[in-house]
Amino acid sequence: MPVSWSSPVRFVECDQQGVVFNAHYLVWADEASMVWWSSAGLPWDDLVSRADPVVKASALEWSSPARWGDTVTVDAGAERLGRTSVTVRFTVRVGERVCCVVRNTYVATVGGAAVPWPDDVRARLEAVSAG
Amino acid sequence: MPVSWSSPVRFVECDQQGVVFNAHYLVWADEASMVWWSSAGLPWDDLVSRADPVVKASALEWSSPARWGDTVTVDAGAERLGRTSVTVRFTVRVGERVCCVVRNTYVATVGGAAVPWPDDVRARLEAVSAG
Amino acid sequence: MPVSWSSPVRFVECDQQGVVFNAHYLVWADEASMVWWSSAGLPWDDLVSRADPVVKASALEWSSPARWGDTVTVDAGAERLGRTSVTVRFTVRVGERVCCVVRNTYVATVGGAAVPWPDDVRARLEAVSAG
Amino acid sequence: MPVSWSSPVRFVECDQQGVVFNAHYLVWADEASMVWWSSAGLPWDDLVSRADPVVKASALEWSSPARWGDTVTVDAGAERLGRTSVTVRFTVRVGERVCCVVRNTYVATVGGAAVPWPDDVRARLEAVSAG
Repeated sequence: MPVSWSSPVRFVECDQQGVVFNAHYLVWADEASMVWWSSAGLPWDDLVSRADPVVKASALEWSSPARWGDTVTVDAGAERLGRTSVTVRFTVRVGERVCCVVRNTYVATVGGAAVPWPDDVRARLEAVSAG
Repeated sequence: MPVSWSSPVRFVECDQQGVVFNAHYLVWADEASMVWWSSAGLPWDDLVSRADPVVKASALEWSSPARWGDTVTVDAGAERLGRTSVTVRFTVRVGERVCCVVRNTYVATVGGAAVPWPDDVRARLEAVSAG
Repeated sequence: MPVSWSSPVRFVECDQQGVVFNAHYLVWADEASMVWWSSAGLPWDDLVSRADPVVKASALEWSSPARWGDTVTVDAGAERLGRTSVTVRFTVRVGERVCCVVRNTYVATVGGAAVPWPDDVRARLEAVSAG
Repeated sequence: MPVSWSSPVRFVECDQQGVVFNAHYLVWADEASMVWWSSAGLPWDDLVSRADPVVKASALEWSSPARWGDTVTVDAGAERLGRTSVTVRFTVRVGERVCCVVRNTYVATVGGAAVPWPDDVRARLEAVSAG
């Protein structure tokens, strides 16, 4: 049961090659991540003040382009939970056609340094990672 | 003696009609405004904490497109100083060819409401408005 | 009966002052314009090849900020129809609270020069301008 | 002898956490890629019509944030040349402090399908990959 975010492709997101410019996939993943964090019981606004998560790494793989006129849906799900990090997979698709898979690794920080997740945050991340 | 900011047009700024998308002119005006505020002795970082200026109105007129491969220059100069506001004119050009004139009206605020410029801020704005 | 477009504010659209950066209002107006052109029976994809409209002028007036967590709605309606141009008003609001009014003036062009609207395009614009 | 692109961080690139939003690193890598392709004797405008390269994969690793007031420099260099692809490494830094390493894999395409580089393109890519 993936958590999803969806939006029509915006005209401004398409470049002069007629396809969505690659950077916008990170924007969409970010929006989907907000839905995902909320669905885990960890709304971003609240989480920022408690674990200050930052994106440590991101990997994107494209398999087909999105274009103006398309509506993209982004399915989000936890892929790997670590002591200080969690990797979330975002599948960007137009209908059933997959355009891109984005994997973001978030790290809990204090003063910029990685730290273990607070216990209750970890409990919630475990619940959705097992799901 | 206008204050200027300049940058090559970025690929991402061009839409699928092959020209710079209109919203980016406000981004460029914003960057030029930072140079202009600094040149007036009012660096933005410092000004925000003292007068909290917000853009109240913006007017743009295009006369020719900018394209990928062009380098845009934005000349900034004060156009009108009011009790609570200042209007700055930004001329966006590629070489001598003008692409767009942007006029931004900035208003000093406290708690979101317009207030007169602090005296020393006003003195500096008068100096550059007369210049 | 205004034509509307709506979207949650995206995290990336908010600047470090915590409010939506001004350029994004032009992006939203552009998305709403696509809905408006379609509702007038002039879908953009088709219109571009027949009248090549460009935004000649844009005027924005802000009355309150939009923030992350808000959902913006943009109501679009024709304001003034000219021989070669049409001005469309976009009211950006969060619920009933108006954030910004954007007025875009579109001009029909051939080779970059303003030309009268094709007759059938004009007929459709008259229909929605009278409405 | 890396090929470099540089720019002051723009205000609009910083989010409400006060740091550059992650998607903008892909924009910067894209600008640096244009410089890199040109330096390899393969200017993008020309290359697009001959090999239609698309970004197939992208990996980003952040080590420190960039902020407004910083000037970022992006050093670009070939990392791996394949039959149909080339991976370019982009090191984004503020002075000597590395913020992010971006690796983009470009694939030559015809009609969306991966194809070997044209011989003369490959010759140029080999020259810079060995360099």
